[in-house]
Amino acid sequence: MEKKILLKESDIPRQWYNLAADLPTPLLPPLGPDGKPVTPDMLAPVFPMNLIEQEVSAERWIDIPEEVLNILYRWRPAPLKRAVYLEKHLKTPARIYYKDESYSPPGSHKPNTSVAQAYYNREFGIKKLTTETGAGQWGSALAFACSLLGLECKVFMVRISFTQKPFRKIMMAVWGANCVASPSSETNAGRKVLEELPDTPGSLGIAISEAIEEAVTDPSGKTRYSLGSVLNHVLLHQTIIGLEAKKQLEAAGEKLPDIVIGCAGGGSNFAGLAFPFTADKINGADIKIMPVEPKACPTMTRAPFHYDFGDTACTTPLMAMHTLGHAFIPPPIHAGGLRYHGMAPLVCQCVNEGLFEPRAYHQNKCYEAALTWARTEGAICAPETSHAVAAAIEEAETAKQEGKEKVILFNYSGHGLMDLSGYDAYLSNQLTDYELPDEELQKYTKDLENLPEAEVRKSGKW
Amino acid sequence: MEKKILLKESDIPRQWYNLAADLPTPLLPPLGPDGKPVTPDMLAPVFPMNLIEQEVSAERWIDIPEEVLNILYRWRPAPLKRAVYLEKHLKTPARIYYKDESYSPPGSHKPNTSVAQAYYNREFGIKKLTTETGAGQWGSALAFACSLLGLECKVFMVRISFTQKPFRKIMMAVWGANCVASPSSETNAGRKVLEELPDTPGSLGIAISEAIEEAVTDPSGKTRYSLGSVLNHVLLHQTIIGLEAKKQLEAAGEKLPDIVIGCAGGGSNFAGLAFPFTADKINGADIKIMPVEPKACPTMTRAPFHYDFGDTACTTPLMAMHTLGHAFIPPPIHAGGLRYHGMAPLVCQCVNEGLFEPRAYHQNKCYEAALTWARTEGAICAPETSHAVAAAIEEAETAKQEGKEKVILFNYSGHGLMDLSGYDAYLSNQLTDYELPDEELQKYTKDLENLPEAEVRKSGKW
Repeated sequence: MEKKILLKESDIPRQWYNLAADLPTPLLPPLGPDGKPVTPDMLAPVFPMNLIEQEVSAERWIDIPEEVLNILYRWRPAPLKRAVYLEKHLKTPARIYYKDESYSPPGSHKPNTSVAQAYYNREFGIKKLTTETGAGQWGSALAFACSLLGLECKVFMVRISFTQKPFRKIMMAVWGANCVASPSSETNAGRKVLEELPDTPGSLGIAISEAIEEAVTDPSGKTRYSLGSVLNHVLLHQTIIGLEAKKQLEAAGEKLPDIVIGCAGGGSNFAGLAFPFTADKINGADIKIMPVEPKACPTMTRAPFHYDFGDTACTTPLMAMHTLGHAFIPPPIHAGGLRYHGMAPLVCQCVNEGLFEPRAYHQNKCYEAALTWARTEGAICAPETSHAVAAAIEEAETAKQEGKEKVILFNYSGHGLMDLSGYDAYLSNQLTDYELPDEELQKYTKDLENLPEAEVRKSGKW
Repeated sequence: MEKKILLKESDIPRQWYNLAADLPTPLLPPLGPDGKPVTPDMLAPVFPMNLIEQEVSAERWIDIPEEVLNILYRWRPAPLKRAVYLEKHLKTPARIYYKDESYSPPGSHKPNTSVAQAYYNREFGIKKLTTETGAGQWGSALAFACSLLGLECKVFMVRISFTQKPFRKIMMAVWGANCVASPSSETNAGRKVLEELPDTPGSLGIAISEAIEEAVTDPSGKTRYSLGSVLNHVLLHQTIIGLEAKKQLEAAGEKLPDIVIGCAGGGSNFAGLAFPFTADKINGADIKIMPVEPKACPTMTRAPFHYDFGDTACTTPLMAMHTLGHAFIPPPIHAGGLRYHGMAPLVCQCVNEGLFEPRAYHQNKCYEAALTWARTEGAICAPETSHAVAAAIEEAETAKQEGKEKVILFNYSGHGLMDLSGYDAYLSNQLTDYELPDEELQKYTKDLENLPEAEVRKSGKW
């Protein structure tokens, strides 16, 4: 039996799957500061119109442009692998498959959307993209895409990461991007913060404000902003993961999986794998679909469903989602990609519909799983990915207790070669688990009631 | 046309190719300090007898054990990729193929031999392996193999790298290895150095001495030493690279390549790709086979062919090779894996026979090539690998000038995600090129004449 199920380039999916077309109830629209739905032209200074059209599309299938595929071929189709060594170690009757998204040059699933976004921007005549990045995963993925598509790229990187984690900054420079520490002196938003707090470590909220400002104030009108998760079109671009996995499971002689797992911060890698199977579940298939988040940042498992801003600085439209509040300050867990206060509206909608069963873990449990993974399957996974590994192991152990031959599929969203300090802390017993206290949760979400809420209340899901 | 030529696991080569069986003239034997050939039992305290037998074998084909294959399947067969994006950028009529060895969990070709070595040691009843490592590439590859095969692993890491490059040290710990800074207080060799030079940054020579001492002094007799390059059996294990590439080129509709390229430090990744094609060349095929080294450490292109020690501390047998002298202190180029003073005897023999055409480059030229690579093919290569990329580009440009459709094949020995500081230096114009002055070369090689030389002189290749 082959442990790696490979597809030829000629077998790559040629359309993305848009779950919005199959949702039992439609998504609540994003709202402006006046509480009224945002119209496409209100977003036009920030995103190009072709991506805005994707964002609101109700089409089930959307063609993937040939030029996007031609870039993805550098690492796609990505292998589906069977974790036979882990299965043997666990003595489980479950068959564990994982989609290996760590083969992309930046090392994660992120380029699936950065390439598509850079392409659509270029088609729309845009010359430059701006974005923010924390530890640098998304910034490097966008730098990579812009390099291959001939766009300028400007990345505002949270200052503390810029200083403490120089390596992804160098990656961005290799791909020709201009990465600056945020707050910077290059925007009004940055200068204002620097005046008031010259020694601030920076934050994603500030970096987003700077990136959006630089995009919307370019007098040539040829600059736009790019976001790496949360939005509908971002999740759409990631569905190539699940669509490939479907073909590969079939090639391995499997029917549908019993369990589908992905870690979820903004929701894009999870959605990319899960949405094509969510369609089957909506049509009656018995699949347990599990987004996994940290207990330190328990958006789906504990946070209220409410309209909220996507960023700390309150510059984005309001989105209906499970949110810990835009002012939420996440504890310093190592899975930096899972520290977002909200969650993709599409994912939240499915949680509300009962289609997904979210789960939350402490980071020590996840690193324990990652170590088992490294010592059986051999590879070192990203701290975010370790949440999916932990869930896969837990489900495989349940299958063993139940004596059932379940098929478990999870998304191996990225390698951990550039995020090893968490492993070091775990191995030396220095890793802290954080549980969000109820009072904190209430403190951060109290103010949400002042934001528009009628639509959410009407939905009956609150 | 598919850009990635993939093999199924069932198509993996099941035997390694031993070039020693086909050499026009036999290899000069390693000598002891008395100038007499080393016998297998003299090596027995250092290596297990089954690997010593491989070291001196004259068999052309040697079976790869099933259990070794079962571990290699985690990433092998490795893809052969066609560099279509680079070809287009260069406007060359050449077809450029590269074997992607960066997919192994430690990120390079090294595990091809670390897995085999750990396996043979375990089969021989050995419980623990020791080794030395500079920046940590080899140490992490051996840690990986020992983890999967259930052996203890002790790595002596040159102190300055241990302090300045913590990440590969953490990788080793993830795979359960015990990595200590060298010189350490755990061996006589280490303690002696620490007494005399408490602040020494350490060196590979000292680390080798410590690793060998820890292996040979284990009273249980269950510890052996492991080396990551240079030796015949190490090169043998790497030939799976070239054997896979042959099948893949055939699948791509190509006959033999016109040009085969690999970077060469100790020689193992180059030999792994090149030796199966060297057999064709010995049989009359017209193939240009090019090992590429740094001008800062010009072993094949400038150093004399002589018997010399493999290590700075003069503890190994004497090997006949091109050598800059065991006391050679290489300049601080970023390609740490290409700073070895000698070269695999098998590779040197082929250079002497005129089978290989070695070439040397400055590091600025290599980083320039690496940047072109990253911005066309998309991936960030290791500083060592950049030497092969530079040669491939140079040959593709020559093919363009000549208007010839040459087939170029090179070994993409590893990714550079954990070695980004060289890129940073290059991008900020801070990278120095070092040319070894003649007087330096003479200084380091002068003393070699006091070592046994009769055999080498007799060979007429000196």
